[in-house]
Amino acid sequence: MTDRTVAAAFVPGHITGLFTVNQTADPATTGSRGAGFTLTDGVTVTVRPADERSLSLDGEPTDIESVRRVLDELAIDAAVEIVTDLPIGTGFGLSGGMGLGTALAANEGFELGRTETELIRVAHIADVEAGTGLGDVVAQARGGIVLRLDPGSPPHGRLDGIPGTERVEFLTLGELSTPAVLTDHPETITNAGTRALEKLQSDPTSEQFIETASEFSAEVGLATPRLQSILADVEAAGGVASMAMLGETVFAFGHDLSEAGYEPTVSQIDPSGAHVCE
Amino acid sequence: MTDRTVAAAFVPGHITGLFTVNQTADPATTGSRGAGFTLTDGVTVTVRPADERSLSLDGEPTDIESVRRVLDELAIDAAVEIVTDLPIGTGFGLSGGMGLGTALAANEGFELGRTETELIRVAHIADVEAGTGLGDVVAQARGGIVLRLDPGSPPHGRLDGIPGTERVEFLTLGELSTPAVLTDHPETITNAGTRALEKLQSDPTSEQFIETASEFSAEVGLATPRLQSILADVEAAGGVASMAMLGETVFAFGHDLSEAGYEPTVSQIDPSGAHVCE
Repeated sequence: MTDRTVAAAFVPGHITGLFTVNQTADPATTGSRGAGFTLTDGVTVTVRPADERSLSLDGEPTDIESVRRVLDELAIDAAVEIVTDLPIGTGFGLSGGMGLGTALAANEGFELGRTETELIRVAHIADVEAGTGLGDVVAQARGGIVLRLDPGSPPHGRLDGIPGTERVEFLTLGELSTPAVLTDHPETITNAGTRALEKLQSDPTSEQFIETASEFSAEVGLATPRLQSILADVEAAGGVASMAMLGETVFAFGHDLSEAGYEPTVSQIDPSGAHVCE
Repeated sequence: MTDRTVAAAFVPGHITGLFTVNQTADPATTGSRGAGFTLTDGVTVTVRPADERSLSLDGEPTDIESVRRVLDELAIDAAVEIVTDLPIGTGFGLSGGMGLGTALAANEGFELGRTETELIRVAHIADVEAGTGLGDVVAQARGGIVLRLDPGSPPHGRLDGIPGTERVEFLTLGELSTPAVLTDHPETITNAGTRALEKLQSDPTSEQFIETASEFSAEVGLATPRLQSILADVEAAGGVASMAMLGETVFAFGHDLSEAGYEPTVSQIDPSGAHVCE
């Protein structure tokens, strides 16, 4: 019988700029190639031993499939409390982040003795099976501007990174229902994402990341009219912005959204990745 | 012609608890399997464009081979300023850390456009060729309690981690000249290190890490009489400590050194890894 105590973990939010869709028969190798970046804002997940499960988000009872699947896989019952400053369901990878935070905090508080690779794998599989994410978890575990060279959880998914701690600006308009192209013609996304990743790998800088993400976004045509209008304004002001894959969210580095006259939320790239809290 | 500006990077100190020696004909695959952890204390490296090279450590001019080799490989001239709160040459992986910090800061300030994997590889090779480290750089890049499952730099060296942010206590007595067993009979070290890593992988927790490191230390017999005396005192007080590989430094988690009557330096495990500073 191991000790059980309360424990917490922080997982950064993650915005994907370009991606591919790689479905296999195994959720551990299913995932996405592509590139994105993590934010200093994210989710803090507290896991508390309890006789029956409960889950709250910013103090309100809720149900989140990725978290439920992680608790099932780790075979624990706990009261899970999640707080976040980021908007839910708008492209910040929070479903995957909540699952990963639950896994890290549960491992710490319940003394499960799992390694980081094992916990990332559990959270990645939960996110894939819940249908809420393909590549957020592995990027959130690493932190920074993350290149997903292979799809899937470790040890399958090879990663690299572009060093940087850029200032980030973003504007969130709302949720985005899963676009038809993603379900009906994922190969359209994957072909564009493959070319975009190759281009970024040939010039792996933060400037090239946002340029490439912007071109990918235009090519796949997922931006709503409201997003297109903001992207055009930023371009007219001499800047470059793109949209979060997938949410009705525009992001830019530096001051490109504010210089186009918007009042964005300001954050920063988090180079650290997910971790247990002290 | 790219812009060149001043830039800085932080690299955590790294204490190795157990290790193997894996020499190959290629410094990129030469390295070490084993386990260690990074500290919230470390080195901050500032790289400034300059017509000729200079290097200072805590304000004093110096020469550090790993840093020189990194500048050679990246083909840049710069004034490199390094500051650290940790003692040099006593088992904190600072040679490797200074090389990695130089690579990260130079990439940022000189817009070299290298990925994290490329920069880690440059710093790992410099550390190996300088003869100052085998596995510090890859662990410092990741952060936390790092398991080095394979030797070498990425993409060769597979890593895993044990989640945790333990309080660390350490006492540094001095430098340790390279022990004869390491040069004459590295297979003795490697055999003990292989068994220790297997034991740790079967129970990957911070408690098992320090137990296994302590057993490895006793088995390879690298502790000086002064170190042995402190390790015995900690054990007599019901704690567990071990020695840094390689330096005349004792470390423990929690309060095990202070509870044995010592007045150690207090630090903490850093889960974040090396990163460019804002």
